[in-house]
Parts: sequence; structure tokens; C-alpha cells
Amino acid sequence: MARIVKKFGGTSVGDVDRIQNVARVIKAEYDNGNEVVVVVSARSGVTNQLIARAKAINPNPADREMDMLLVAGEQETIALTAMALHALGVDAVSMTGAMAGIKTDPYHTRARIVRMECQQLIEYLEKKRVVIVAGFQGANELGQITTLGRGGSDLSAIALAKGVDADLCQIYTDVDGVYTADPRIVPKARKIQEISYEEMLELASLGTKVMQARSVEFSNKYNVPFEVRSSFNNNPGTIVKEEVSSMEDVVVRGIALDKNQAKVIITNIPDKPGSAAKVFQGISDANVVVDMIVQNIGRNGVANMTFTVPQDDMDRASKAVEEILAELGGGEVTLVGDVAKLSVVGVGMRSHSGVAGQLFAALSEAKTNIQLISTSEIKISVVIAEGDAEEATRVVHTAFGLDRVD
Amino acid sequence: MARIVKKFGGTSVGDVDRIQNVARVIKAEYDNGNEVVVVVSARSGVTNQLIARAKAINPNPADREMDMLLVAGEQETIALTAMALHALGVDAVSMTGAMAGIKTDPYHTRARIVRMECQQLIEYLEKKRVVIVAGFQGANELGQITTLGRGGSDLSAIALAKGVDADLCQIYTDVDGVYTADPRIVPKARKIQEISYEEMLELASLGTKVMQARSVEFSNKYNVPFEVRSSFNNNPGTIVKEEVSSMEDVVVRGIALDKNQAKVIITNIPDKPGSAAKVFQGISDANVVVDMIVQNIGRNGVANMTFTVPQDDMDRASKAVEEILAELGGGEVTLVGDVAKLSVVGVGMRSHSGVAGQLFAALSEAKTNIQLISTSEIKISVVIAEGDAEEATRVVHTAFGLDRVD
Repeated sequence: MARIVKKFGGTSVGDVDRIQNVARVIKAEYDNGNEVVVVVSARSGVTNQLIARAKAINPNPADREMDMLLVAGEQETIALTAMALHALGVDAVSMTGAMAGIKTDPYHTRARIVRMECQQLIEYLEKKRVVIVAGFQGANELGQITTLGRGGSDLSAIALAKGVDADLCQIYTDVDGVYTADPRIVPKARKIQEISYEEMLELASLGTKVMQARSVEFSNKYNVPFEVRSSFNNNPGTIVKEEVSSMEDVVVRGIALDKNQAKVIITNIPDKPGSAAKVFQGISDANVVVDMIVQNIGRNGVANMTFTVPQDDMDRASKAVEEILAELGGGEVTLVGDVAKLSVVGVGMRSHSGVAGQLFAALSEAKTNIQLISTSEIKISVVIAEGDAEEATRVVHTAFGLDRVD
Repeated sequence: MARIVKKFGGTSVGDVDRIQNVARVIKAEYDNGNEVVVVVSARSGVTNQLIARAKAINPNPADREMDMLLVAGEQETIALTAMALHALGVDAVSMTGAMAGIKTDPYHTRARIVRMECQQLIEYLEKKRVVIVAGFQGANELGQITTLGRGGSDLSAIALAKGVDADLCQIYTDVDGVYTADPRIVPKARKIQEISYEEMLELASLGTKVMQARSVEFSNKYNVPFEVRSSFNNNPGTIVKEEVSSMEDVVVRGIALDKNQAKVIITNIPDKPGSAAKVFQGISDANVVVDMIVQNIGRNGVANMTFTVPQDDMDRASKAVEEILAELGGGEVTLVGDVAKLSVVGVGMRSHSGVAGQLFAALSEAKTNIQLISTSEIKISVVIAEGDAEEATRVVHTAFGLDRVD
């Protein structure tokens, strides 16, 4: 007998038929003699409808009331899922996040989980009841309803797996697992069987949208292994877990490509102490997150600087920089929107040298110019022209031996 | 400064415009320096949508999960109403029934309120915040979400008025108040300024659909006066309160007409001990509520019996009676569907004699045959032909001096 947490997203519970399908998946697990905790999101679309209704009433709704409003979505799904299980003869009971013991800090719409109090939930499991928990939500110390922000239901599942000491946590999604690269770009991409938290974290933060980075961070912090798998088939997915030494045998686990990148080049900035600080303070005040930065100390008392930002934020960043440059009394801005960031990720880089060289050789073979480089312990990222990006990804994928062998 | 509870039903908060209208009504009260607690229902239609979705998944959904599902409707409304108040610059905060301290017994879908714990709500009021509470819902001792059954939001409002020791409880509805008779039938009906709990209770249980009888019972039990008024205009409504001696000056407060009545006549029942008990047990087992009963001990060892049931239940009642008669070995059933019950209600009957005589005289003047009669301390009901019912109501209304004088 195992204790298993299963999380289903909004698409998986989008309508009556899909809820019934999810109920069958749960029943199969339960019939195997396992204890099952299920985390569900709101039906896809419901959250957006509620937000639209709120904005029609108040363009700037209070965070506390947004939380009170949005949790209604998951509350509907947990009740319907429990009813679907009853129809299949499975004893099931629903719980809101608060009832399930998800205790958070007081920050509405972006609360962090501070503690899990799962006694009542565990009692239900011990009575052989399937427990359906509303994802994305919790309650603070005062009993106020809070929500966990984007991707919060994954976080709920991982926290519950920790809270009930589960043997397995399964995140059901619309993809089959984590791939060595996006299969739409690299047809020979392989599904990864096992990946470490850190690798998953790098891939998540690099724009592989299987999961939000914060859920992976949480699972890493509390060492909660989980599986990413499809709710539409029964294939084994990808296990995300603590690094084991055998993982280092593979140099590169996967390749991420982020096309939502733009490059901002500033030339001829007056080279005074604090110039760079002022520029980045201005961008930060404009709520833009800067990714890679390269600064060259120039000649004749001026400096040059290049950095990348999300393409959507390019105009906002540029406007902020123009204002700072006016203050500093000099400098020009050039924007390059059509760039992409290609990253190779793998814990094996720690013990294998020459990865950068191999990457640069592959890019050179693909006739791709490298515009910027940044590295971490388990990752090398390069900024390249967007037009070269997909072909470069395929070439690099092959170069690191990741191609599927049929 | 007064402490006021205001309750708005599903029609009053049916869409964004109406929620904004409700917010303006609340703001006006708040701007007068009063403390305001607001109880709202789910937007009209939402509850039925949720029920339909549940039935599509499970034709016989569990009560606990129905409660979990349905409370989502009010939770949406409280958040949207709070946001609408914020947009008008009013400090408002929403609370679920559980947060507001409505403690119930454990019976899902029909829970009874056992205790009010309104400390947190009162603290909000003392901080000059308007508190918006989800109607129809509470929580039992184990923290499970419960609902109060039909008309539950009125009950929430009256219980909260008691719990926060309010000076005034206002039930906003789509009618102007309680009338001496249904104005669609009696154009000269007058709005009643003040009515006792008991009179209101009789009128409610006799089919005047302003409020459910159980809300009135609750207000009577705890002596919580309330006002029934319109959410679409600013007219004073009807105050429902403890009986005061001056109320007895009026003999008849109002006249109720219930057309949803049917008469079941059983003739030639074998006159054995327990026959009647068996008949009524059978009807009760069929979940039909019997209203008026007349039994005649007949001759030749057989008896006759007549009683009334809601017209919708007539067939069910008749089937149950046929089965019992087969067991008893005799008796015939006759059904009369086209009857109505006319009732005159007033605490003044206690001190005024001759009310029955006055009623019968008026009915005779209207050439209306009386088929059955039942009386209580403050009510006389007669069953008459449905075809005579509306004209009879107008004649009786005039006879008791209730007509409006323009």
C-alpha cells in the first residue's frame, strides 16, 4: 500500500466528461489498495471569468477580496470531483485548502506556505476515504483565505505530499513529461526518465512551461520527489527528485529555448561611479526583470552595456533607460527584439569539462553567431539571433547525444 | 449611530449593475454614520447552474458535497460586493458564513443554527468597516461547511442581527413589504406597517411568499424584529416585531389565499381502531404533508374522512391512500383538485369575538360555499372552490375594513 498525491490542472477537470475521466484514474489507484489525496484546480476558464467580473466592478480589486473570489473556482471542482467518485462507488470527501491544513503567511494573492496541519486529512485517509483538496489556496493564522499565486496548485500538491508523508506525488498535466527539448522544435527529443530538482528548476526558469519554478524550489527545499505525467494517457512520466551520483553520467540533461528575449544595448554612457547602478535601479523601478548583463568599460570616459529582458517588457525597459540617460547626461539606446536564449542544462557539467567548447563548436557548425554568454554551475546560456534559434537547438541536441534512437 | 443588518437576495445582486446599486444603498447607510452588516445570496441563477452540473455528474449527490459546491455561489457575491464598495471609497470586508461565526448542527443541506460567535465581525464593525457576509451557510463544530436550506439567507440575516445585537434588520426583496392581501388579486390591498411574528408566521406558512416560515420562527424565538422592504425603491417597508397590545385593535391583519390545494375524500373506510392512523402514516411515508382534516364517524361500521394536501402532491397522496385502503379491505377515494384555502389572520381575534360569523357572512354574500373549516387562536381558514376564490378574497377584504382609502 502506498500513499499517493495526484494533482490535476484546470484542463483535466474542464468539463463534466473530464471530471469523470479524472475520477476513473483516481478509482483505479484506489482499487489498487492505495491511499489517495487529489489536488484539483478550478475548471479552465473559470478563474478568468471571475477576474473579468471583478474588474468590471472595480478595476483595482483588493487582494483579500480577489482571494475570497477566486477560491470559489476550486471549491466547485472539489465538490464535483467527490460526487463523480461517489458515482463510481468510491468513498471520497472534499476539503478546501484551509480545511486541509495549508497554513500560509498573510500576503494575499501571493501567500507562501508556512506550515502544514494535515491531521484531519490523514484521519480520512486512514478511514479509506479518497480526499479531494482545493489547490491554489490556504488560510493564514487569522483564518483569512489566501491564494498561492500562479502555479499554486502544483505547490499545494507538493506541500500536501510533504504534509501527509506521501510515497509519491504525481502532477498530471497536458504533456507527457519533461523532454530533452521542446518536441515541437526538436522532433527527436526524448522524454527524460529522471531529473534532479536543480536541473528541473533551471529548465522551469528558462521557460520550459511544465511547472512554475517556485513549485520546484519548494520540492527541492523539502525534498519531495514528484512525477510529471499526462492526464490523457497512462504512460510513465518524468520523475523529479534529489540528485543521485549516477545523474552526473549525463553531461547535458536538456536544452531550453526561450524566444521571449530582447537585447538592450546602451552605448556611450558617461563613465561615472554609480552610472550602472542608476540604470538598473531605473529598470527595476519599471518592474522589468533583467536577465543577462555584459558591461564593457569604454574609452574616452564613456562605457557600453548590454543586457537582456523579456521581449514583452522591451519598450518599458527602453523608456526607463532613456529617462536615466537624460539624467546622466549622455548615452544612446539600441533595441534588438529578435533574439533568443538557448541553454544547456545538466548536473553532469560539474564533473565534465569542455561542455562550453562543445556547445560553441556545435553552434559554429550551425553557423550561429553567439551574441552573449552566461554560465552557472549546471547551465550555459547563449543569446543568438531568433532566426537561427530552432535549427541551432536541433544541432546542439544532436551534438550532446540527446537524440532519440528509434 | 445604529447597528444595522441588511440582507439582499439573488435578484438584487444578479449582475454587475445590481451589485453596484446594492453598494450605493449600503454606502448611503454607512455615510449616515451607521454600522452596517450586509448579507447577500448567490447571484440569481448561479445556484441552479451549480445544481445542474452536480446532477450531470451524480444524479444523487451527497449532501456534504452539495453544501461544499453551493456555498461557492455566495462566496463570489460577497467578494464582488466588497469590491463594489471599495470602488465607492467604503472600507468593506467579506466573510464566509463560517468566518462570520454562524455555527450549525451537523445536518448538511438543512443545518440549523446552534450558536453565533460574532467577535471578529464585531471587531470589524468597531473599526468602521462594512462587513459583507455570505448568506445561507455556516459551519458545524468540526469546521465542515453546512447550508441552511431554502430561504437560508434570511435566516442568516436574522441570526446575525441577534449575534451582533443589531438595532435593525432589513430584508430587501422584490416586494415593497407585506400587504393585507396579494395586490394582484385585491387591488385595494394596503401595505401593513407593523405585524407581529405570529401573524407573519401564519401568513408565511399560508403561502404568502415574502419569507420562509422558518426565518420568521427564528426571529420570533429570539425576538429579532426585522423590516421587509424593496431593494428597488426607498419606501418604508413592513416591520415584523413582537406583539404589542395595540396590535389587537385590528381584528384581521391580512388575508392569505393559497390556490395550491387539493381535497382528498375517503368514503366507506372500515371503521376499525387504527384505520385513520394507518391512512395518515401511509401519506406521511409518501412524504406528503396533510393540512386540514375532517373525520365523520359513519354508520354501518364504515367512516368517511376528508383532508387537504398541496395540489402538487395530490397524485402521490392518492396512490398512498389506495395502497392503505387495499390493506384495510375497503373504502373509496375521490380527489378534488380545484379548491383553494382562504385564511384571515390577526392577533385581534383573541380579544374580538364574532370574527368567524363575520367571515361566513361575507362568504355567503359572495355566494361562496364553505367546504372545510379550520381555526387556530389567530387564524380562520376555509376551503372553497378555486373558481370563487379571488372574488371571495376581495369581498372578505372589504368586509374586514382592510381596503385602502385613497
